[in-house]
Amino acid sequence: MRALYIGRFQPFHLGHLHIVKYILEVSKEVIIAIGSSQVSHTVHNPFTAGERFLMIKKTLETEGVDLRRVHILPVPDIYRNALWVKHVETITPPFDVVYANEPVTVRLFKESNYNVKVTALYKRNVYSGEEIRNRILENKDWEILVPKATVEVIKDIDGVARLLEIIKSDKKETSYQEMTNSI
Amino acid sequence: MRALYIGRFQPFHLGHLHIVKYILEVSKEVIIAIGSSQVSHTVHNPFTAGERFLMIKKTLETEGVDLRRVHILPVPDIYRNALWVKHVETITPPFDVVYANEPVTVRLFKESNYNVKVTALYKRNVYSGEEIRNRILENKDWEILVPKATVEVIKDIDGVARLLEIIKSDKKETSYQEMTNSI
Amino acid sequence: MRALYIGRFQPFHLGHLHIVKYILEVSKEVIIAIGSSQVSHTVHNPFTAGERFLMIKKTLETEGVDLRRVHILPVPDIYRNALWVKHVETITPPFDVVYANEPVTVRLFKESNYNVKVTALYKRNVYSGEEIRNRILENKDWEILVPKATVEVIKDIDGVARLLEIIKSDKKETSYQEMTNSI
Amino acid sequence: MRALYIGRFQPFHLGHLHIVKYILEVSKEVIIAIGSSQVSHTVHNPFTAGERFLMIKKTLETEGVDLRRVHILPVPDIYRNALWVKHVETITPPFDVVYANEPVTVRLFKESNYNVKVTALYKRNVYSGEEIRNRILENKDWEILVPKATVEVIKDIDGVARLLEIIKSDKKETSYQEMTNSI
Amino acid sequence: MRALYIGRFQPFHLGHLHIVKYILEVSKEVIIAIGSSQVSHTVHNPFTAGERFLMIKKTLETEGVDLRRVHILPVPDIYRNALWVKHVETITPPFDVVYANEPVTVRLFKESNYNVKVTALYKRNVYSGEEIRNRILENKDWEILVPKATVEVIKDIDGVARLLEIIKSDKKETSYQEMTNSI
Amino acid sequence: MRALYIGRFQPFHLGHLHIVKYILEVSKEVIIAIGSSQVSHTVHNPFTAGERFLMIKKTLETEGVDLRRVHILPVPDIYRNALWVKHVETITPPFDVVYANEPVTVRLFKESNYNVKVTALYKRNVYSGEEIRNRILENKDWEILVPKATVEVIKDIDGVARLLEIIKSDKKETSYQEMTNSI
Repeated sequence: MRALYIGRFQPFHLGHLHIVKYILEVSKEVIIAIGSSQVSHTVHNPFTAGERFLMIKKTLETEGVDLRRVHILPVPDIYRNALWVKHVETITPPFDVVYANEPVTVRLFKESNYNVKVTALYKRNVYSGEEIRNRILENKDWEILVPKATVEVIKDIDGVARLLEIIKSDKKETSYQEMTNSI
Repeated sequence: MRALYIGRFQPFHLGHLHIVKYILEVSKEVIIAIGSSQVSHTVHNPFTAGERFLMIKKTLETEGVDLRRVHILPVPDIYRNALWVKHVETITPPFDVVYANEPVTVRLFKESNYNVKVTALYKRNVYSGEEIRNRILENKDWEILVPKATVEVIKDIDGVARLLEIIKSDKKETSYQEMTNSI
Repeated sequence: MRALYIGRFQPFHLGHLHIVKYILEVSKEVIIAIGSSQVSHTVHNPFTAGERFLMIKKTLETEGVDLRRVHILPVPDIYRNALWVKHVETITPPFDVVYANEPVTVRLFKESNYNVKVTALYKRNVYSGEEIRNRILENKDWEILVPKATVEVIKDIDGVARLLEIIKSDKKETSYQEMTNSI
Repeated sequence: MRALYIGRFQPFHLGHLHIVKYILEVSKEVIIAIGSSQVSHTVHNPFTAGERFLMIKKTLETEGVDLRRVHILPVPDIYRNALWVKHVETITPPFDVVYANEPVTVRLFKESNYNVKVTALYKRNVYSGEEIRNRILENKDWEILVPKATVEVIKDIDGVARLLEIIKSDKKETSYQEMTNSI
Repeated sequence: MRALYIGRFQPFHLGHLHIVKYILEVSKEVIIAIGSSQVSHTVHNPFTAGERFLMIKKTLETEGVDLRRVHILPVPDIYRNALWVKHVETITPPFDVVYANEPVTVRLFKESNYNVKVTALYKRNVYSGEEIRNRILENKDWEILVPKATVEVIKDIDGVARLLEIIKSDKKETSYQEMTNSI
Repeated sequence: MRALYIGRFQPFHLGHLHIVKYILEVSKEVIIAIGSSQVSHTVHNPFTAGERFLMIKKTLETEGVDLRRVHILPVPDIYRNALWVKHVETITPPFDVVYANEPVTVRLFKESNYNVKVTALYKRNVYSGEEIRNRILENKDWEILVPKATVEVIKDIDGVARLLEIIKSDKKETSYQEMTNSI
């Protein structure tokens, strides 16, 4: 059995690691799909797909996870929700079960008749990408929420400074709505 | 005379039907252009262009509207407001008058010297896509605002469950602003 | 020495003019890059790249700036922050120093090892695109913040009416978030 | 039963008309999908989707075809063959059978388990878009291959002059291959 | 009067220079639009828009052309011929006359009612981008066809080696046709 | 040391396998990048990225290659050669050396100062994707050129029938050139 686990991993944290380990207990292989792979250098998506790949790979290696059973893949957005599942299917090997948390993702896989497991996140309020990004921005202790190998990657790429600089951006300007005809 | 009537029709409701009937009283033909046709499975745009096509077609059929005088066409967004009218012109037959409601759409057609009729929506506060979507989400009586044939389409495609699942999504994450350089 | 000065110039105002003049005191040439060049007809980005080009060119001409030392170029968004600096590099002549104000832009150029000068905007709270657009919308005195030649361009293209019509749009509908899988 | 009939219709000719009439004998409704709808002003694709829409509509009207049973829709290319059927499905009402002629299209619908009828074109070597375009370019008698109403549309839009001017283009320059990494 | 002169300038050669000088005799200003600006590193389009910008600017400077009357602008392709003129219009200042040579370009501007001057190229068989690229590939004397300042730019960017390496590519593989549904 | 090995793998053959094994003798890890990952169902690119992923993974597994040292990643085209290396860098972990064969790819990595090893293909005239696709089309013995596990994947997905059907397509129609302004 091959499972698909899809997330943005901005950054990869202990809650994600917990789920990967769980999936490997019940599945033979897991595809870890890095969603919104084309996005980076924003407050909610600070890291590139390559940086996130490295976080995941180094962490799983350190944790002694069997990398022969793990495939880490970037999945770019396509801005067509109705085609998104098919898009994922054509860039990954086949999978039997989907682990996801985001409601639109869950719905889309269900409409394509997949067996979707909603990831009951372990201590969700602390082990969340948003919580970690906020702690970094507020100079609070974020490192306890993130695997050590991932902390190192973030430091190697000067990730904290990146986030602190990007946050100064005035997020209210130029919303997507303005660029399209909402009719 | 051929009229263009452009909207998103998320979903097609009694206000829209009212306008189509009015246009057919004063024009020989109407092009019903389904805007943002590439968008679906979101809280403000739950239905695909194909689903919206079916709502409109079945409703007009049921209402005894003469379908020989009606053309229903998907119009995808192009994210270049200044090219949008030309984009519409190249995928539809020529039209003499435009019915629209959204201010940017109205402005763009005016700048291209079209005769634009702003649709004074019939009981706008109730006959609105947003009101209907909110009623669905709050389990209030939405069916009285929508033509019966459209209600049936929504039920056939399990549209209420789709909307209830999608609403759980955390809409604050990943705004467009973050993906672009707002400079 | 050639400098890159990047902004959206919605519209070009006296603060921008101040910076261009300053750059020409310390650099031999300046590339004025019109960012988000594909966006127009929105509340935050009302003017096309062509219109903004005209504002800048006419103003600099009127001000007696030596146009031989100035290059005005449109730069479209690419929605891939990590590729954006390279994108700029491939459509402009080489530059030695960057003048910018938006934090993501500043960060991206720094990560590519450019010498970035953050433009300490002259009287920033008044000389800002947002302030000017708001004054236009509220029918307050905006013309004192904008070079005369730019005021004329805005009037020639009926820019005030455009902005007043576009503002009626309900900006809350159809956010980018809805179109993508935020997972 | 609803049939999908997909073609490029550059231009709509007597062979196409023959097939539409046949489909309406065996199906209740037909969706005429105008493929590559975004392409125009080329030797193989001279006409816009709007122009092709008009050819089809006027011809069927003249021929006394029941327009209530016909839906004419533009279908833009998406450059992802593996997603193309899904793309079509999301912008049209549901269909039970597909009429097509182009081998890739046929294959893609078959892989999605559709009932595909390959259109055994009536006198294919003469009733073909390529033959008609060549006759126009060589100033031979092309009008006998095209319905009268379509001939009129082509003349109204000055289509012959367009084709004669475009043919002068040196088609060998700038192949797609050059723009991509063929690795 | 402002003229638009559009070409690909791969590379900028003496025929182009001849035309620019001619235009400046009869027009007050010229916009030199670098077409297919997003394409580079191919046999027919070896140079980036930035490199072509530099060739043009340095050559005109050397030739003593009044740069105050010249605007050099990148124009990316949009793959929608029917929208292309509008696309150009929105990223350039307004122009009264168009100088072009490529037949599709000429046709598109004519359909938009522009005054189009077909550039009767000076000694076209020698002063052509294709001839120059071929001479470079065959190690023949190409430098006599190109302004000295442009030769220098090509040498500075190691352009000859680039072209010689790229030519080894097997251009027959992966045609555009294969990626789309030609139906 | 981490190596990048980039190819299209249409399909993965014994020459590719030979190179992967060689790389693993001299490098600690290899990223196998599946280029043109968005293309499928064409004569030169018959297989999806997911199908190619499966061919590679199953073959390496069968061959006893240590999968902990191998990362298989889809890389979509971006149609901007000058940005392509940066694009690859942002979706993969960092790499020290590049193995490639296609001349444009080789040139682009060299211009970005990578150490590029041109893969002197083992018996290139037989171990080539084109040779294998031609043998399939001509019903000749292709299986001896492809690892057994890859043969099985091709059969599982009915790949031979796909190729035989697609080949009927008239490749001459609708070239890319026609869609763009070659100027």
